[in-house]
Amino acid sequence: MVDKALAGAGLRGQVAGETALCTVGKTGAGLTYRGYDINDLANNAQFEEVAHLLLRGHLPTTEELAEYKAKLKSMRALPEAMKSALELIPADAHPMDVMRTGCSVLGNLDEEKDFAEQDDKIDRMLALFPSIICYWYRFSHDGVRIETATDDDSIGGHFLHLLHGKAPSELHEQVMHVSLILYAEHEFNASTFTARVCASTLSDIHSCVTGAIGSLRGPLHGGANEAAMELIERFSSPAKAEEELMAMLARKDKIMGFGHAIYRESDPRNGIIKQWSEKLAKEAGDTVLYPVSVRCEEVMWREKKLFCNADFFHASAYHFMGIPTKLFTPIFVMSRVTGWTAHVKEQRANNRIIRPSADYTGPESAEWVAIEDRV
Amino acid sequence: MVDKALAGAGLRGQVAGETALCTVGKTGAGLTYRGYDINDLANNAQFEEVAHLLLRGHLPTTEELAEYKAKLKSMRALPEAMKSALELIPADAHPMDVMRTGCSVLGNLDEEKDFAEQDDKIDRMLALFPSIICYWYRFSHDGVRIETATDDDSIGGHFLHLLHGKAPSELHEQVMHVSLILYAEHEFNASTFTARVCASTLSDIHSCVTGAIGSLRGPLHGGANEAAMELIERFSSPAKAEEELMAMLARKDKIMGFGHAIYRESDPRNGIIKQWSEKLAKEAGDTVLYPVSVRCEEVMWREKKLFCNADFFHASAYHFMGIPTKLFTPIFVMSRVTGWTAHVKEQRANNRIIRPSADYTGPESAEWVAIEDRV
Repeated sequence: MVDKALAGAGLRGQVAGETALCTVGKTGAGLTYRGYDINDLANNAQFEEVAHLLLRGHLPTTEELAEYKAKLKSMRALPEAMKSALELIPADAHPMDVMRTGCSVLGNLDEEKDFAEQDDKIDRMLALFPSIICYWYRFSHDGVRIETATDDDSIGGHFLHLLHGKAPSELHEQVMHVSLILYAEHEFNASTFTARVCASTLSDIHSCVTGAIGSLRGPLHGGANEAAMELIERFSSPAKAEEELMAMLARKDKIMGFGHAIYRESDPRNGIIKQWSEKLAKEAGDTVLYPVSVRCEEVMWREKKLFCNADFFHASAYHFMGIPTKLFTPIFVMSRVTGWTAHVKEQRANNRIIRPSADYTGPESAEWVAIEDRV
Repeated sequence: MVDKALAGAGLRGQVAGETALCTVGKTGAGLTYRGYDINDLANNAQFEEVAHLLLRGHLPTTEELAEYKAKLKSMRALPEAMKSALELIPADAHPMDVMRTGCSVLGNLDEEKDFAEQDDKIDRMLALFPSIICYWYRFSHDGVRIETATDDDSIGGHFLHLLHGKAPSELHEQVMHVSLILYAEHEFNASTFTARVCASTLSDIHSCVTGAIGSLRGPLHGGANEAAMELIERFSSPAKAEEELMAMLARKDKIMGFGHAIYRESDPRNGIIKQWSEKLAKEAGDTVLYPVSVRCEEVMWREKKLFCNADFFHASAYHFMGIPTKLFTPIFVMSRVTGWTAHVKEQRANNRIIRPSADYTGPESAEWVAIEDRV
C-alpha cells in the first residue's frame, strides 16, 4: 500500500479526495468553477454570484442574488467583543495574524454548534472579513473606530469604502468583483487542504477557516502579490526594470509572481487581471508601474519562459486602487473563504478522517538511561 | 501517478512524508518516541524530559533539564493584552475555541519573524497554554483574575495549581507527568498533519499550532476522553454499567474510548493510565467510577473484542483530580503541542509544500447563462 518513492514529496499527484468544485489546468491552462470557465465568470459575474455558485451549487437568479446580497449586507456589523479584541492587536502585527485571530474570535462569539448552521456561519464570515481587517487597520494605524455596517452593494465595494472612508468608483468596485472571483477557488491547494483535514475530524467551520488562513499566510502560498509589489515598486522605468531583472536572474534571485505549480503554459487569471490593471493605470495617469509590470512580464518570458501568474498584475491593480501592500493577502482571504468553506461542506457530505502514514527514519529502538547516567 | 481507488479514503496507508519522531503500532501494539518505548518514558520520565526529547532530539542531562524547566517556568506570565482578550470570551465558549484563540492571539503579540526563533516561541507556548486556559476558566466561571506566574516545578503541577488555587499533591503532579507524556506525540494523526501542511507553506509556528488545535477539536480526534467521562458518569454501579452497555451495543450506539484506527490488539497507553486511575480511585475512596470503568472494559472486550484506548481511563483519572470534563481536551493540547511543533521543525528542515490532487466529480463544462435568463 505504501509507496516509499513518494515520501516527502508533498503528496504531489496523489489523490486526497474528490471535488465537484474546480478543475485546475486540465488542458494545461484552464480554470473552471463547477464547470464554468473562469473567463466567463470574471467577465460577466459579480463576486456574490460566484460565491453563490460555489456555496449553493448554482448561479443565482436575479431574486436569489438580491436575497443573498441583502443577507450578507445585514451581517456587516462587528460584535462589540470583536471590536475590543481587534483593538488589542498592535499596529505592527502581521495582517494575516489579524485575520486568523478575527476568525477564531468569531468562533467564540458565534459558535457553530450544529452543521445545520453552516451556511449562516459561512455567510457571516464572508460578510465580516472586510469589516474585521478594516476595523483593525483603521484603529491601529489611524486611531479611528469605524462604523462597519455600510450600505455598499458588494463585498468589494464595502471593503474599499471601509478602507478609504468613502464609497468607491464604479470602476474600482468592478475590479474588486473581478479580483475576488479570480481568487475564490483553486482545488486542493495547501490552505484548502488544511481546511479539509480539519473538517475531516468533524470540527467546526471557524476552526477550518482559521487553519486555512494560517496556511495561506505562508510565503510559499499567499503573499506572492505582496512580493510582486515589492519587486515592481523598486523600478523607476521599464528600462531600469529590465536591467535589474537581468541582474537578478544572473544572481539566480527568487522572483515572485511568475510560474505555477500546476499550470504549464499560462495562468488563465493573468490575462484577465492584466486588462483591468491597464484600465486602472490609465485612470490614475500612471506612466511607471504598469509599463514596468509589462516589461517584467516580457523579460521573464523571453529569458526563462516563465509566465505571470494571478498575483503579478494584481499588485499594480491593487496599488492603483490605493490599497496598502500589507492588505493584499487579507483580500485573498475575503475571496478564498468561499472556496475553503465550499470544500468543507463537500468534505462533511462524504467524510473520512484524513490520516496519512509516515516513513519512519528514526532509531529502531533506544535503551532507557536514567537521568543521572546521561552524558 | 494518480491512484483513483484511494480517492476519498482519507489518505489511509499513503505516505505523506518522513518522520524520526514516532512509531505507532509497528508491532501491532507499540508506541515509541525517537525509539524510546512509551512504557519506559511514562514510568521513568518527567513530561519536560519527554518534551526535551521530542523538541531538542535527546533526553536531557540533569543540568539540561534544570535549565529547560527554569526557562519554561520563567515564561508563565500572561501579557496584559492576552488577559484582556481572554476576558472577552464568554463562559459558555468551547474551551478548545479558547485555546485556538489564545494561541492565535499569542501570534499577534509575540510573532515568530524568523525560523531561528522557533524554539523560543515553542517553549513559550508550552509554558503559556496552562495559563491561558486556566485564566479564561477562572475568570469566566469564578470571576477571579488569577496570577499565572507560579513557582510550580512542572507544567502539570502548574496547571493543577492554577485550576484549584493550591499546589497539587505529589501523586497528582506525578499523574499529570504520565498523562502529558502519553498524549505528547502520535505520528501523522489529523492535527499533526494539519500542522505539517501549514508548516509546508513556510507559515509561522503560531499558525501551525492554531490550525492543529482546530483539528484536535473535532469529535473524531480529540475529545474522546470527554465522551468517555460522559459515558461512565451515567452508571451508578458496575452491574448497571454492564446492563446499559449491553443495551447500547444492541442499539449499535457509538461508544467512545474503545478501539483505534492504527492499533489492532491494544493501545499501549491504556495499561499505564489505568494503573494510575486505580491509585487515584483508592486515594479518593471511590467505589463507583473506577469499578464501572473496569466493567466497561471487560464488557467491550468480551462482546466486541474492542480494547480501551488512551482516552478511556484518562476520564476517571482526570475526574479524581478534580478536573472539569470540559478541560480534558485542552490538557491534550498542553501535551500534544510538543509533538506538533517537533513535526513543524522536521517539516521545515526538509520542506516541500503539501499540495495533493483531487478527483474531479463535477460537470465537464457549463455554458454561461446571463442572470436574467436563469431559472
